[in-house]
Amino acid sequence: MSYRASDLADILEGKLEGDPEVIISGVAKIEDARPGDATFLANPRYERFLGSTQASLVIVSSEQKTGVSTVIRVADPYRAFAHLLELFYPPESPPAAGVHPSASIGTDVTFGEGVCIGAQVVIGEASTLGDNVILYPGVVIGNRVIIGEKTVIRAGVSIRSGVQIGRKVVIQDNVVIGSEGFGFTPGDEGDYEKVPQVGTVIIEDEVEIGAGCTIDRATLGATRIEKGVKLDNLIQVAHNVVIGANTVIAAQSGISGSTTIGRHCIIGGQVGFVGHVTLGDGSLVGAKSGISKSHPPGSKVSGTLAKPHGEEMRIQASLKKLPELIKRVDRLEKEINHLQSQLLENPPLSKKSE
Amino acid sequence: MSYRASDLADILEGKLEGDPEVIISGVAKIEDARPGDATFLANPRYERFLGSTQASLVIVSSEQKTGVSTVIRVADPYRAFAHLLELFYPPESPPAAGVHPSASIGTDVTFGEGVCIGAQVVIGEASTLGDNVILYPGVVIGNRVIIGEKTVIRAGVSIRSGVQIGRKVVIQDNVVIGSEGFGFTPGDEGDYEKVPQVGTVIIEDEVEIGAGCTIDRATLGATRIEKGVKLDNLIQVAHNVVIGANTVIAAQSGISGSTTIGRHCIIGGQVGFVGHVTLGDGSLVGAKSGISKSHPPGSKVSGTLAKPHGEEMRIQASLKKLPELIKRVDRLEKEINHLQSQLLENPPLSKKSE
Amino acid sequence: MSYRASDLADILEGKLEGDPEVIISGVAKIEDARPGDATFLANPRYERFLGSTQASLVIVSSEQKTGVSTVIRVADPYRAFAHLLELFYPPESPPAAGVHPSASIGTDVTFGEGVCIGAQVVIGEASTLGDNVILYPGVVIGNRVIIGEKTVIRAGVSIRSGVQIGRKVVIQDNVVIGSEGFGFTPGDEGDYEKVPQVGTVIIEDEVEIGAGCTIDRATLGATRIEKGVKLDNLIQVAHNVVIGANTVIAAQSGISGSTTIGRHCIIGGQVGFVGHVTLGDGSLVGAKSGISKSHPPGSKVSGTLAKPHGEEMRIQASLKKLPELIKRVDRLEKEINHLQSQLLENPPLSKKSE
Repeated sequence: MSYRASDLADILEGKLEGDPEVIISGVAKIEDARPGDATFLANPRYERFLGSTQASLVIVSSEQKTGVSTVIRVADPYRAFAHLLELFYPPESPPAAGVHPSASIGTDVTFGEGVCIGAQVVIGEASTLGDNVILYPGVVIGNRVIIGEKTVIRAGVSIRSGVQIGRKVVIQDNVVIGSEGFGFTPGDEGDYEKVPQVGTVIIEDEVEIGAGCTIDRATLGATRIEKGVKLDNLIQVAHNVVIGANTVIAAQSGISGSTTIGRHCIIGGQVGFVGHVTLGDGSLVGAKSGISKSHPPGSKVSGTLAKPHGEEMRIQASLKKLPELIKRVDRLEKEINHLQSQLLENPPLSKKSE
Repeated sequence: MSYRASDLADILEGKLEGDPEVIISGVAKIEDARPGDATFLANPRYERFLGSTQASLVIVSSEQKTGVSTVIRVADPYRAFAHLLELFYPPESPPAAGVHPSASIGTDVTFGEGVCIGAQVVIGEASTLGDNVILYPGVVIGNRVIIGEKTVIRAGVSIRSGVQIGRKVVIQDNVVIGSEGFGFTPGDEGDYEKVPQVGTVIIEDEVEIGAGCTIDRATLGATRIEKGVKLDNLIQVAHNVVIGANTVIAAQSGISGSTTIGRHCIIGGQVGFVGHVTLGDGSLVGAKSGISKSHPPGSKVSGTLAKPHGEEMRIQASLKKLPELIKRVDRLEKEINHLQSQLLENPPLSKKSE
Repeated sequence: MSYRASDLADILEGKLEGDPEVIISGVAKIEDARPGDATFLANPRYERFLGSTQASLVIVSSEQKTGVSTVIRVADPYRAFAHLLELFYPPESPPAAGVHPSASIGTDVTFGEGVCIGAQVVIGEASTLGDNVILYPGVVIGNRVIIGEKTVIRAGVSIRSGVQIGRKVVIQDNVVIGSEGFGFTPGDEGDYEKVPQVGTVIIEDEVEIGAGCTIDRATLGATRIEKGVKLDNLIQVAHNVVIGANTVIAAQSGISGSTTIGRHCIIGGQVGFVGHVTLGDGSLVGAKSGISKSHPPGSKVSGTLAKPHGEEMRIQASLKKLPELIKRVDRLEKEINHLQSQLLENPPLSKKSE
């Protein structure tokens, strides 16, 4: 597959500068690109490669200074690059259409058209798969599960009974959805009794869930991941959590029971939320933060005991000065002691002289 | 299924106030409940829903003020609610009794009565399953594994050779038990040689292990999870760790090699323990703490470098004042400089006047 | 199997002190050892057991004081102990040689000699397995995957299409390699569009990957784990990360996209790296650190916002003094106020007297 630079400019709705006839036959990172490749520049950290890249074409933002002979200028170079990737790398072929003979399918399972059910898949009773659902090998689906059309579920995923999954959802490998949450009540002898977890999980349309995530079913009602949410790998979502539409959460974060995260939030990696709190819509949470209380919409917080980001940054900057500050206070105490004793020995005479 | 309020009061051994004839046909959270539902109030955060709930019956503690027409008063409303859930939601039906034809069973495997072995399960040689053990689809059991009666193992779990699991244990999906731990010794060329991990894992009775947890086998001897321990999701337990009876640990915590955690401890989420330390019985560890040394029984610690909780709280409160403190010390230094120069220029005259 | 102490001294190339004829028939930890066992002492924390151990032989370093009758002195007792373990515990038998009849093998798959393919394994099209590769039950391999000789892959692992794995690699249970990374670009309506992840993962020779790790494929190019790297359990490696040869990383750490970690680094547990930074060769990173910027070779850093380890330790020590420091500054301010008002009321008379 190859394209002229001018064709790519049309496809990307960008502005071409340089030779419209350059032939592009591949895509590469700016530091790896070879003649014939298109590349892009989005993150300023990579600007230093502009001078030396061998790429025949660089996709840049409208203001970017280059020095490169052929560029396409677009509003969002990373997004344009994503389109190029789709163009040059057609998606991997899924398992063969139909149901693999080694799969174990329960009674009363309903399949839409064009489903691809891989080897060793297990589907329980009375589950429903929409059109063009793809289940990769080793997926285990419980009873009465509903999966919407065009949803793709990767190898080794376990979807427990009663879970509902929307359309165009992507679930990466070895995810668990609908496991029983951490609900125990103290028994009489220092032990714990299990609280039945009889609710479910609802995953709305266009959600993506990263490899190894665990999403517990609700005690009662539903744990809910709203439309367009993107979860990175190894994230823990406890019972009765709600994550609002189009929120993105980076890897290894954990959300405790009954906490609600608003829409359009951006949450860093290794963040922890306590239970029963609310994070308002449009909030930003720094990596490794600990969210121990509710925050209103539009919050920007960070820190192990999360605070407004500006305050946390001031504290972090101050911390570097703390060891020296202690010495300064030591010195001040000595000096003030000295002054006091000086004045005690030799009090100002004004009083006496009055 | 429906019950009269007075029947439920009997079942829960609670004290009914209001109409004994109210018919209850479901259970719901206080904010979602509809007429005919029972609900409960345990966490004071939810008190605000008392005024508006449509529930026909609310389970509350003996002192709780309500305003609701029909209540059952009990010592522990959450526990009573758990009993109601069992009453209204009978447990999900497991895989069919017997061994699914797609399962692969090794030689010399012993099955107790009433076992349910799901599709695509693999069991190695000479393993023993007690009565009424349930293995969900895709579980892989190694050689010489022993599993006690009434233990339930969910989809995708891997139990490695030689591991021993007690009775009434619940293991959620995609857990790994008995993997080889992180034991390496520096080689001669900057590389590492593997230390064979020849020990095992012992999981005692009534333990529950959350989805995605990893529990490594001992280098020698046994990694041991004692009776009644409850582990949340995505917890890492390294080789030769011991977790004492009835300790509960929240999600994403990690315990390094040869560390011992006492009995009846409560440990928050995302906590990390270094190796070779001991946490005494009955200790509490705050979420996100880092345990870098041993702590005696009854400790209550928190913080990234965990300290006694009160001390950590004082430090956290002080941190907020740190940026201002630096300014105050700047000011003090200026003032004292001023005083000193004032006194230097114009020393008190007392001495001279003596 | 049993050995004379003198035989073991020869095997371990150590210096025997005591009775060369003592018969050793087992290996145990120092606190558990019984007569007839060999044990070792490497960590000074365990020195207290030297007086009471029942072991018939203790492996110690050349300088260690003992009091035990029979010892073997070696340069590295832990490494010598690892050799003893190999001697006394031959490795577990893998799945039977050949391909288990329940496995599903795609077209054009190439097997080397001596491969052991367990039950329920799935291998996609055109994949290549080297000599003596062992796949435990339930492993899912995609299309065009290459696996080098003597590599061992444990139960439930998913290796996605196109991934390349070297020789003598060990991959513990339920690992995911080659999942699609967290690449999204903002859409027009507050939603996110997926950036195709068309690169791959390259795992070089002698790497070991702990249970439950997730390693994402590159957006373009390759995520690369170099020769001899050791990853503990539940580690997240994002797209386009590079981990240099012989680096070891403890459990639950996470590395964000396009970050490069040098060779021979040692990284503690629960560490988080932001994306697009570089950690130089031979660096040490303390547990729970947050790496938010690049660090040069030989760095030794720690802390939630990682700093040079010495600086972080000074800050941590200072933090304990902070609550008291605030009181000291309060007191200083009062004293200086007092001095100021004293001097204001009674200014030194020198000026007047001049």
